Amino acid sequence: MTNQLRGILAPALTAVTQDFRIDAARTIAHFDWLLRNGCDGLLLFGTTSEGNSFSIAERRRLLEQVVESGIDPLRLMVGTGCCALADSIELTKHALQTGCAGVLTLPPFYYKNIEDAALFRYFASMIHGVSDDRLRLYLYHIPPIAIVGFTFSLIEQLIAAFPGFIAGVKDSSADWNHTKELIARFAGRGIDIFPGDESCLLAAVRAGGAGAISGAANVSAASLQAIYRQGADADSHQAAIAKVRRVFLQFSFIPSLKAIVARTRGDKAWFNVLPPLLPLDERRVGEFFAQLDAAGFEWPEPGFDQHGI
Amino acid sequence: MTNQLRGILAPALTAVTQDFRIDAARTIAHFDWLLRNGCDGLLLFGTTSEGNSFSIAERRRLLEQVVESGIDPLRLMVGTGCCALADSIELTKHALQTGCAGVLTLPPFYYKNIEDAALFRYFASMIHGVSDDRLRLYLYHIPPIAIVGFTFSLIEQLIAAFPGFIAGVKDSSADWNHTKELIARFAGRGIDIFPGDESCLLAAVRAGGAGAISGAANVSAASLQAIYRQGADADSHQAAIAKVRRVFLQFSFIPSLKAIVARTRGDKAWFNVLPPLLPLDERRVGEFFAQLDAAGFEWPEPGFDQHGI
Repeated sequence: MTNQLRGILAPALTAVTQDFRIDAARTIAHFDWLLRNGCDGLLLFGTTSEGNSFSIAERRRLLEQVVESGIDPLRLMVGTGCCALADSIELTKHALQTGCAGVLTLPPFYYKNIEDAALFRYFASMIHGVSDDRLRLYLYHIPPIAIVGFTFSLIEQLIAAFPGFIAGVKDSSADWNHTKELIARFAGRGIDIFPGDESCLLAAVRAGGAGAISGAANVSAASLQAIYRQGADADSHQAAIAKVRRVFLQFSFIPSLKAIVARTRGDKAWFNVLPPLLPLDERRVGEFFAQLDAAGFEWPEPGFDQHGI
Repeated sequence: MTNQLRGILAPALTAVTQDFRIDAARTIAHFDWLLRNGCDGLLLFGTTSEGNSFSIAERRRLLEQVVESGIDPLRLMVGTGCCALADSIELTKHALQTGCAGVLTLPPFYYKNIEDAALFRYFASMIHGVSDDRLRLYLYHIPPIAIVGFTFSLIEQLIAAFPGFIAGVKDSSADWNHTKELIARFAGRGIDIFPGDESCLLAAVRAGGAGAISGAANVSAASLQAIYRQGADADSHQAAIAKVRRVFLQFSFIPSLKAIVARTRGDKAWFNVLPPLLPLDERRVGEFFAQLDAAGFEWPEPGFDQHGI
């Protein structure tokens, strides 16, 4: 079975109501827009999606609504890594039953200093618990947030023990040398390496990476797509994207992305974020937009009615 | 409303089956034994209990079974802090409906570098979401594991905004100076400070601390109780406990505690731990027990039938 997911995937933002529920209509409209505007696929319930801030029941329900809306589940990767093994198994089974192309799984992230043998046992137990030949498991390496991560040796062990099930790695180490090493070691063996940081996208695809799963794809998918395709303008797009990233790094990333969507769509509801995140401070919004303009940010086309903001 | 919980509380170990389910019968027998052998109360679903490794449904079910078994819910504090606000609210409501004396709540621990204003919003939203005057909320400060913690300023703000609801702090910083400062700032204002580290228990109770919520209470509650009561032998008990702690620090703590229970009860099922923890390696078990003996560890009385191990 080949991997379905390559190219530019957005860890898709999840719209929420003021009382902290998923706003399915706005979320699905955003997903649909992303898939028609440069994204090859979507990651649901990643870090940028505030995935771990939702209950299991909410996560199941949204995925069902997304697929019911007509979005092709073969363009979906679903975040399913929880602290509780039982939850990770439940969400993974559900994603596969829903027909999704793959799941992206965090290591269990509550306990720290977990040795490889213990993480191996966790993933072996998860794969046995899921027990579904359709499983395409992407490993989610994001040590700045999860603290617990995947060593090269652990990845080797998982590939060796579960051939065909380990489909790839999303590398959100924000360390290009680490991404490069992952590509060198694993990309030739059917393992798709996706950097989580768009600033190394061109280098990654040139080295044999599979694309990117990067928060910026929520607002800059067309540029990322141009880089991914390595056309004549790839270098200039990469330089422009790097400039914009430097602006993002000065603000809170997820609320900033939502602020861009709010302005693009003319829809203040997109400013909402779930605790423990805070919406971008109103005074900071103007500063953020001004800095984006100064960095030459290409505002996305809204693609549907604007309400004025 | 006064706080019900003071003294020695065990963050009670949860027995699990080999297929990673809660073994309610063994768990409740252990809880019952703890309450008859030196524990004033129990913390369910703390770190030592592997609380975050269980699904919400499993956590609800065990608590119900514990109370159905006849254990007084006024002796129970329940860990309810999850990454998802909706889960923390659900578990807190459930604990209060079950009649428990208090809940211990972790800060949301997936995202890192969360500012106080954002954590304040999380807890304010939780308290409003629970909306129950019976709420006695204990703040769970455990930066070595959760990474996210409570600053003194955040605790001040929560006490000021929600008088009567903030009942205490479990300080698992493993930093006596931090515990001392918490006691100095808050203990005189009806906030119970429980160190999570039994090695400073005597100093803490002398300074005005409320007792301890410490993993060692699963196997050394009688000694901890003697220290808490500050009798003539308190200093010698404290010195003995400190010696034993140095042994614990060389092994994996939760599996080690379970190994002691397994030997005491003559019941190998107690060796089981959930991924991502690993049971204590068989070769290490003998070494661990020998070091405990050398440190003068007082093995607990089993209190019920032993099966031989």
